[in-house]
Formats: sequence, structure tokens, C-alpha cells
Amino acid sequence: MIESELLRHIYSRSAGLTRFPQVLVGPGDDCAVIRSPSGDPLLLTVDHLVEGRHFARLPNSPARPALDRIARKAISRSISDIAAMGGTPLASLATACLSPDFPQPIADDLFDRMNHWAASWNAPLIGGDISSSPDHASQAPLILTTTVIGIPHPARGPIRRSTARTGDAIFVTGALGNSLASGRHLTFEPRLREAAWICNQPTAPSAMIDISDGLGRDASRIAIASNVRLVIDAVLLPIHPDCPDYTHACSDGEDYELLFTAPAALDISAFTNSTGTQLTRIGIVEHGPPGCTIISPSGQPLDGCAMGWDHGRA
Amino acid sequence: MIESELLRHIYSRSAGLTRFPQVLVGPGDDCAVIRSPSGDPLLLTVDHLVEGRHFARLPNSPARPALDRIARKAISRSISDIAAMGGTPLASLATACLSPDFPQPIADDLFDRMNHWAASWNAPLIGGDISSSPDHASQAPLILTTTVIGIPHPARGPIRRSTARTGDAIFVTGALGNSLASGRHLTFEPRLREAAWICNQPTAPSAMIDISDGLGRDASRIAIASNVRLVIDAVLLPIHPDCPDYTHACSDGEDYELLFTAPAALDISAFTNSTGTQLTRIGIVEHGPPGCTIISPSGQPLDGCAMGWDHGRA
Repeated sequence: MIESELLRHIYSRSAGLTRFPQVLVGPGDDCAVIRSPSGDPLLLTVDHLVEGRHFARLPNSPARPALDRIARKAISRSISDIAAMGGTPLASLATACLSPDFPQPIADDLFDRMNHWAASWNAPLIGGDISSSPDHASQAPLILTTTVIGIPHPARGPIRRSTARTGDAIFVTGALGNSLASGRHLTFEPRLREAAWICNQPTAPSAMIDISDGLGRDASRIAIASNVRLVIDAVLLPIHPDCPDYTHACSDGEDYELLFTAPAALDISAFTNSTGTQLTRIGIVEHGPPGCTIISPSGQPLDGCAMGWDHGRA
Repeated sequence: MIESELLRHIYSRSAGLTRFPQVLVGPGDDCAVIRSPSGDPLLLTVDHLVEGRHFARLPNSPARPALDRIARKAISRSISDIAAMGGTPLASLATACLSPDFPQPIADDLFDRMNHWAASWNAPLIGGDISSSPDHASQAPLILTTTVIGIPHPARGPIRRSTARTGDAIFVTGALGNSLASGRHLTFEPRLREAAWICNQPTAPSAMIDISDGLGRDASRIAIASNVRLVIDAVLLPIHPDCPDYTHACSDGEDYELLFTAPAALDISAFTNSTGTQLTRIGIVEHGPPGCTIISPSGQPLDGCAMGWDHGRA
């Protein structure tokens, strides 16, 4: 199944959402946005975590540290979506679909750790659902979902993907690449503090996304949503010390770093002192056919959209 | 795995939620409740729909009417949770975890129908996530989840399970029993209109739940949460015409009718004309050890808690 094709169908049906006044942003961004009765904008996002897809298959009796990392990733992916809108989490809900022979004490540990991580990011676990796969499906993967509700920055509102402007600079937090091989995809820290810093500056960010599918592909998503071209200079990239080269940094994905555009005047000198995270200017937003160009160290223009994963996040 | 045991562990950890001022109601009711920054109470619920558990295994190319019913149930179970709090839906999010060989046009149809049903209950689908099971799991079931956000009745607030009072009467909407065998579990109408009627009366309901796991078991949930005894008279039960007897009506489950308690003075004479649904007074709330007694037609007291399903709704 070509999931991006399926998502295009889903997005095309979102046109009908205009008749629902409570909907401010529908499918296609890091979070959807609705309006509460008093007018509060609310961010909503849901993500899967599938055994054998988003984490390695578990043995029959997984060790506690392994469960802890899975629980952490299940929660933190959705928290990262809230950060990518410049928001703050309020609460979370989690579901688990367990194989019929999944041991109860392990399920209990898993929920205990999800509870821990959700609370640690101020998104307390307030509900959920537990099911077993049917008995014929003893090989069925463990599947978790996490829904997080949050609020956008009070002054900036939700930071969309679709509002990058020609002439803006492009920035990225942290360092990129090798997240899966190194195991960092399980233990990353959602960039809530960094998103708050960015939104608190006098110079507002114009567009933002978290890097889940690879810098090239996620930059292309901002570009296509904003109808601009993002031009990224590979020699400027903050490549993780254990990442082999810039192509990995552009395409590995699962970094969960923030990629954003902002006026070039944005003063980032205090960022690292304030957040403990590095921030790097990596390119510029240009006129041109929507998409992302990565300029290789030898000066070759590469198609960023081809650098990364095509999976199915709606 | 004993899911009710796992849920007890989860609920016991909810005590820590008191340090989060945004949380009004944690796990253990039909919906959780949080407070928006301006103070709006918000209802949140999430439910699984698992192939082979909540609906029959699909053939490789399921027919459109079958897909439509699955999509409908996936959305309507969570909408029913909003109704059970006396609320009104605002929006929904859906996830699908598909087997690796799931045909894309069928996935597209499924989302199209989820979109249709969500909109029909004024809970437009604003986001979601799509994943494939790993390649080794070709027998993996189709798993859908639906998160719904809603708002409680503006005057009554969220109708909890835990606030039934001694002396209240017990009421149930519609007719009970044989929902699975008849296929009604796929096509029920969430009782939003009925919940609104109940909340709009001068005599407020004291506690409410939707019947998913069987009248006896769900009545026991109200009883235990409220520390009272619900005594239900089997001869008063609205048994569905195709349901064999009162024991099925008490234990089949998946009715998604509203069970609620209210002062005996509640005037229900206008209910059916207003909603098109029947409403029946079936018993009384008494002092006594928390639980549910069903008085059989021959006058025998039966343990309601043993009548129904023990599955894992958090």
C-alpha cells in the first residue's frame, strides 16, 4: 500500500471540514486544531507505535529497561507533535492492543512507564483502552497509540507547516542522523522547551515541523504546504558525531528535532544557554517550484523529497 | 490476562493526577475530563475496534457495506462514551493499523466511511495515523482506534458514574439484548439526543453509563463507583423482541443504550415523543453493599456483576 497516496485521499476529503466552525486546522499538520466553546485553541494529535515497525520485536519476557524505552517513545512521539506546533501538552490517552498471551505483569509495567513519561512532560495519562488481539493472532504485534491534547503558544498561536515565507532562514535544533541505529529514536527528549524559546522571541517563527521521516522529506512538507522552495546547505548541517555522513543526516529520520523557518533577523545567540540544545541555521526559503533542495558539499543540488521515509502519518 | 486486574492497577496510579490542576476526571469513567485554559471542561475518550474481537474477521476483499458498518462502529463507540457523560462531540481522530497486504482502495473506503460517520455525529475527523503491521504479521488483525473530544452539558456538567444516590430511580433507553447476534452492535445510534433530553430536564440525572459490557456489569460499575446498590427488576426490563430472555438482556452487552439514575420525580412522559426512543424505569438505588442485584421474574436475587463481559476499557 502506498500510504502517501492514501493520505492524499484523506486530505482531499478535509475540504468538507469548513462547515464545522469548531475546526481550525484539519488533517495534514503535526496537530489538528479545534476551538473550545470559550474560544481556546486546542491541539490534538495521535500516533501509533507498532512492534516490528517503530521498535524491534520483543522477546516473550522483555526486560524492564526495554519496556521503559518503548513506553517513552509511545508518549514522546505525540508530545513532539505538540512541540512542533509551538505548543504545551495538557493531557494524554493511551491504548494498547496486546497479543492474547501477553503477560499481565508486563502490560502493567508498560502502562506504569507510559504513565511516568506522560506525567514527566506534563501530559498526565487520563484514559485509554486495552484490548487483546484475537486468539488466532498469537504473532500479532504489540500496538500502542497515544493521543495528546495541548494548547498553542498564547501569543503566537499554532505554528503551521504552511506559512513559511520567501526570504526566511531555515533552522534546526540538535544534531541529525543515525537515530535508529544508535537507539536515540527511543530516548529523544521532545523539544518542548526549545519550541517555547522559539515562540517567545520578538521575531516569530513562520513554519515548523518535527523531523520524523528525514530532514529532506520533512523540509519538503513545509515547502509544499507553504508553496515555496527550501534550500538547505549540507555543509551547514549539524550532523550527529556517530552519523556516517550528510546523506544519513538528511534521510535517516526519527530525529524528532524541530525544523523551522523564521526571519533571518532571529537572534539565536542565547538559545543554547537557555535550553541546553544547539540551534543551527542551515538554509534559506526561496521562490520556486515547491520542494526542498539539498546542496551537497560538492555543490550538487539534490531532491530533498527523495531523502527520507514515506510512511503514513495523517 | 485478567484485564480488570490490569485496569485496577491503572486506576490505582491515577491518584497522582491530583497534582495536575488541568485534570478534572481521570481514568475509570466513560470519558476523562480536563479543563481548557479559559476553564471549559472537555471530555476525552478513546476506544479500540479489533478485527476478530469487536467485529468478525474480514475476507481479503470485504464488501463496501461490511466496511461501512465497521467504520460506523469504530466511530460510534467513542461517540457513545460522550453521550454517556451527557455531552456533545466536537471532533475525532482515528488510527488504522493495517496488515501489510491490506489493499489500499479498501483502506481508502474505510477512512471515507469513518469520515462520513464522524461528520454525521458532528465529530468531524480532524486527524489520525496509519501504520502497517510488520511483514511477518500477515495474519495481524485490522485495528482501529477512535479518539473523540467533546463538551459536557453546559448546565449539568459531566454526568459521572460515581454520583448515584440512594432513593434514585434507575432508567434505561431503548431495548436490550441480542445485539451481537442480530448485528445491531454494528449499527446502533449513539444516544446523543437522548442524553441531551435527560440533561435538559429540571430533574438532573445523578449518574450515567452506556451499556457496553452488559446491563448487570455496567450497573455494577455505577454502584461500585457510587458506593450504593442498584436493584433492578427483571420484569421491568425492555427486552428486545429478538432477544431470547431476560438473562441475555442483562448480560449480552454491546447495546450502547444509556443506563442512568435520577430522582424518582423525573417526568419521562415526553421522552419518546421528543427522541423517538423508548425510556423505561427498571429499578431503584438502595443502601447496601456496593453492587447490582437483578431480581429475576420468579423473585430470586441474582448478582448483576456476574452478568456481562470483563474486557479492558480504561
